[in-house]
Amino acid sequence: MKVTMAHGSGGESTSKLIESVFAKHFHNEILDRLEDSAVVDGSSKIAVTTDSFVVTPIIFPGGDIGRLSVCGTVNDLLMSSSTPKYLTCGCILEEGLDLDVLDKIIESMAQTANEAGVKIITGDTKVIENKGGEPGLIINTSGVGFIRKDVEVPGPFNLKGGDKIIISGNLGDHHATILGARMGISNNICSDAAPLVEMVSKLLDNGIKVHAMRDVTRGGLGTVLNEFASSSKCQINLYEEALPVSDAVKDFCGILGLDVMYMGNEGKMVLSVAAEDADRAVSLIRSSKYGENATIIGDVVKVNDDDDIKGVILNTKIGGKRTIGLMYGEGLPRIC
Amino acid sequence: MKVTMAHGSGGESTSKLIESVFAKHFHNEILDRLEDSAVVDGSSKIAVTTDSFVVTPIIFPGGDIGRLSVCGTVNDLLMSSSTPKYLTCGCILEEGLDLDVLDKIIESMAQTANEAGVKIITGDTKVIENKGGEPGLIINTSGVGFIRKDVEVPGPFNLKGGDKIIISGNLGDHHATILGARMGISNNICSDAAPLVEMVSKLLDNGIKVHAMRDVTRGGLGTVLNEFASSSKCQINLYEEALPVSDAVKDFCGILGLDVMYMGNEGKMVLSVAAEDADRAVSLIRSSKYGENATIIGDVVKVNDDDDIKGVILNTKIGGKRTIGLMYGEGLPRIC
Repeated sequence: MKVTMAHGSGGESTSKLIESVFAKHFHNEILDRLEDSAVVDGSSKIAVTTDSFVVTPIIFPGGDIGRLSVCGTVNDLLMSSSTPKYLTCGCILEEGLDLDVLDKIIESMAQTANEAGVKIITGDTKVIENKGGEPGLIINTSGVGFIRKDVEVPGPFNLKGGDKIIISGNLGDHHATILGARMGISNNICSDAAPLVEMVSKLLDNGIKVHAMRDVTRGGLGTVLNEFASSSKCQINLYEEALPVSDAVKDFCGILGLDVMYMGNEGKMVLSVAAEDADRAVSLIRSSKYGENATIIGDVVKVNDDDDIKGVILNTKIGGKRTIGLMYGEGLPRIC
Repeated sequence: MKVTMAHGSGGESTSKLIESVFAKHFHNEILDRLEDSAVVDGSSKIAVTTDSFVVTPIIFPGGDIGRLSVCGTVNDLLMSSSTPKYLTCGCILEEGLDLDVLDKIIESMAQTANEAGVKIITGDTKVIENKGGEPGLIINTSGVGFIRKDVEVPGPFNLKGGDKIIISGNLGDHHATILGARMGISNNICSDAAPLVEMVSKLLDNGIKVHAMRDVTRGGLGTVLNEFASSSKCQINLYEEALPVSDAVKDFCGILGLDVMYMGNEGKMVLSVAAEDADRAVSLIRSSKYGENATIIGDVVKVNDDDDIKGVILNTKIGGKRTIGLMYGEGLPRIC
């Protein structure tokens, strides 16, 4: 069976679609009320975020748009040192989408939400015409997290001189997966789409002084670190040798001339951590799910005058220095 | 200037677009931080909602997709008897969209948010290819409201025998506007897209016993009242003569054979109110912005046995009775 325009009418067909797909998989005591607004317990400080997912293809090695849509929003909430609690699910379906495919994607969302410990509490479904190509879907997830009272909220403006820069694992996997899938190349690479709940909890529970953290998505590590450097008026020195990249991704980048500094991940984060806590932070991340390749990749030098800001400098394997600027241009469209 | 795929890259072009359009219009102390998650004050009970807007055309008489996207989500929050506080803005832009058009729509969102007393605190922008036709955009707004502690949350399951059914104004305006615009007919009808903050506040501040309230959108009055009737196991008697419809909409419906019972509005709500409060409720709504045509349109009869459920019955002008079932089929696609 296929999605029809009638599924977006707001009438009987919409109700049936919601019951047979969304309510079936998302089932919880809040969502089951199927009200336009979900009423839930709050907290004195909350984090709110939103993200729309337009990735193509919608199913790819290591994940699908459903898993991605939960991971992206959960990770955004985690990065503000909040505990992710609630997600919304706004689906825009293209006419002709196979209902079995939709079912699989919504099931994947439900499983990922379960893994991340969040509840999907309300949703909305619209249908638009398919103007060409394989019918797809777009998912918006917005999220609410409760701010942890025991930790200071870090931010990109909060890097300190002497901090160590830590990455939670290998770079480039999601990007290489999507590009490979779109080119029809079987490159044996899987998306790293993952919720980073465990590693963030461990870091904060153990009092690691995290000065900034950010998930590495669209725009890649280069984009995040540039924002860190300019917001905190500091220079970040990276060591190319230390950057963790799998052999498969390295080979793929080599063939296509891709720069791993600007490739997106969906289950990685980069942190700026007080030097004295850095080794312990790496250990804590490595002992967490999805963190086995965590490592220190650079350090922070504070500068006092605007003129001294050098941004992000990559110390290359052959002893050179390369400035890592902001990504310019298209990157890979519809990577997330 | 037009939207390009590079505007969705997450790199420099995305930053420039966000600064020159979104941050300019939405400007407030929370959004200005431009973090992926906004950290804000919460409350012990919150309402959370999400809605994606896919209306075409994106600008129409009486409003645009921006105004609609704020009204829809604000009204959903109001219907759960919460005070709307925060909105997110997730934009999916089609390549080639004129930046002046985008600017106009985002300005309209900002103005409507201001009117409704909510802050847009975080957002996300993606760009997708335009596969044909005029390039458009899709907006998801998710919202957080604080549950009022002084009132009971009503729901569609809460109708009581003897209740009066009240509509806050004329039916069908938004639907007739969109259909007219799409057919290229100038029908002198304007969309009613409006935030219903004032009328809901007045009702609740004055202790009106509201047993259920719902905004009338996709699927129209018939769809909402069917849900009321089946959730509360009651019969709703409507009086055709009492239904407020403007002459222009009546004429438009007459020509095209449209049934106003299933036409969507975007600035109207229907309530089930204790009989003794009904006249006062109508007065309060009439004294509010967008409520000048509020009126009682029917009443509620409680039934005891499942077999007795009659759903929604329309008592016609010529003395007949007509069952108003659930809308079946497509309705008007992309009305909101």
